[in-house]
Amino acid sequence: MPSQTSQPAFVLVRPQMGENIGAAARAMWNFGLDRMRIVAPRDGWPSPKAVAMASGAGRLLDEARLSPDVPDALADCSFVFATTARQRGLTKPVFSPEAAMKLAAEKIAAGEKVAVMFGPERAGLENEDVAKANAIISVPVNPAYGSLNLGQCVLLTAYEWQRQVGKIEHEVVEMGKADWATGVEIEKLSDHYEGRLDEAGFFFPPAKAPNMKVNLRNLWSRMALTNADVQMLHGIMRQMVRWKQRGDE
Amino acid sequence: MPSQTSQPAFVLVRPQMGENIGAAARAMWNFGLDRMRIVAPRDGWPSPKAVAMASGAGRLLDEARLSPDVPDALADCSFVFATTARQRGLTKPVFSPEAAMKLAAEKIAAGEKVAVMFGPERAGLENEDVAKANAIISVPVNPAYGSLNLGQCVLLTAYEWQRQVGKIEHEVVEMGKADWATGVEIEKLSDHYEGRLDEAGFFFPPAKAPNMKVNLRNLWSRMALTNADVQMLHGIMRQMVRWKQRGDE
Repeated sequence: MPSQTSQPAFVLVRPQMGENIGAAARAMWNFGLDRMRIVAPRDGWPSPKAVAMASGAGRLLDEARLSPDVPDALADCSFVFATTARQRGLTKPVFSPEAAMKLAAEKIAAGEKVAVMFGPERAGLENEDVAKANAIISVPVNPAYGSLNLGQCVLLTAYEWQRQVGKIEHEVVEMGKADWATGVEIEKLSDHYEGRLDEAGFFFPPAKAPNMKVNLRNLWSRMALTNADVQMLHGIMRQMVRWKQRGDE
Repeated sequence: MPSQTSQPAFVLVRPQMGENIGAAARAMWNFGLDRMRIVAPRDGWPSPKAVAMASGAGRLLDEARLSPDVPDALADCSFVFATTARQRGLTKPVFSPEAAMKLAAEKIAAGEKVAVMFGPERAGLENEDVAKANAIISVPVNPAYGSLNLGQCVLLTAYEWQRQVGKIEHEVVEMGKADWATGVEIEKLSDHYEGRLDEAGFFFPPAKAPNMKVNLRNLWSRMALTNADVQMLHGIMRQMVRWKQRGDE
């Protein structure tokens, strides 16, 4: 059984080697985290290599939630961090691991569901994955040499979580109890706009369309949208389509 | 050449596997540390396995100071930390990595030479080694599961050193250099949407219209929109209107 303590979910996106999944489990459990989610592991699941490497933290693998894609993995989350090594020119707030886990702790204390995405070993998260995040975590490594692997990135983030919750349990965290939209709701909103705008010929010229779509998804995920906001944005698009369908008036 | 910045020496005491020495070098150099000392490595020195694992941080191995025993490795140090996993009932101050690296930074700034000892993979430092230290560093791991390996312990300590001396430590690292929209641009965006949605019959029933308009204006102003976002949102609305004007297709 996962522990009862509220905590962020750590989402391994398309991890390649089972050993690294096992190492990530160990890194998490060293700091009391046991909610792992795994998106489309390259070598299939379950993974004997992951189990071998996880020694003592195998429970995390047994209980890990397997998802076919990122939207499925983030469906119930209202705030998502993406860990990236490089600057990507995306207009999302960039946090140190410390600041990120502080914010995560505050949000979790206020009842939000928080996830942290970690990319595959070689290339890290795709821009498309990062577009689904609300904010970025960047570990301030030596600019002349950034060479953190997956397990190390998980370790430092888990360590910072532990540092933050060790500290803040004495503080009273109060946040406006907004009814924040979850990942699946943002995803549906993105799909709705993308689909209709595709019909309307918005993504033009075709060569630029993929990039425009990523930018639009970034826009929705970066905004702190409430459920009411999402409903209004759906309503706007539905009404524009109805208006079109009625024809000239 | 080692960097000129003052920094603690990391002393690997009787490390067993070359791979772990290489991993320690990478962990150190990720956070700008390049003074490694090695005491009596089990499998001899130099170590091809260490070199293979150190990719990009091999210089640390070339420049590492090899010592036959702990006293030789610590000969020029005025303050020594020992990293240990377990409580040992030794009457020495115990520091978190954070507090230890803060103290190390203060001592180094005052001209002292500081070293941090890391024990062999399996058993950690002997009591005899710990006896040569002035203080202990203990990573606050999950009491139910302490399973940090050598490379991870080096990584967390190096990370804390970087946090203590780095410029980008306690707060949000950087808000991606965004070109934020001004109030007047948000106002124009609000007007554009309100006008077109009025035509489209979105604000219905009339009794609720004023409130709906306020909510929509609130939505735009509450979001942290960049100029690019505002342009995209204008573009979306313009395109929906064009689509309507083209009529059924």
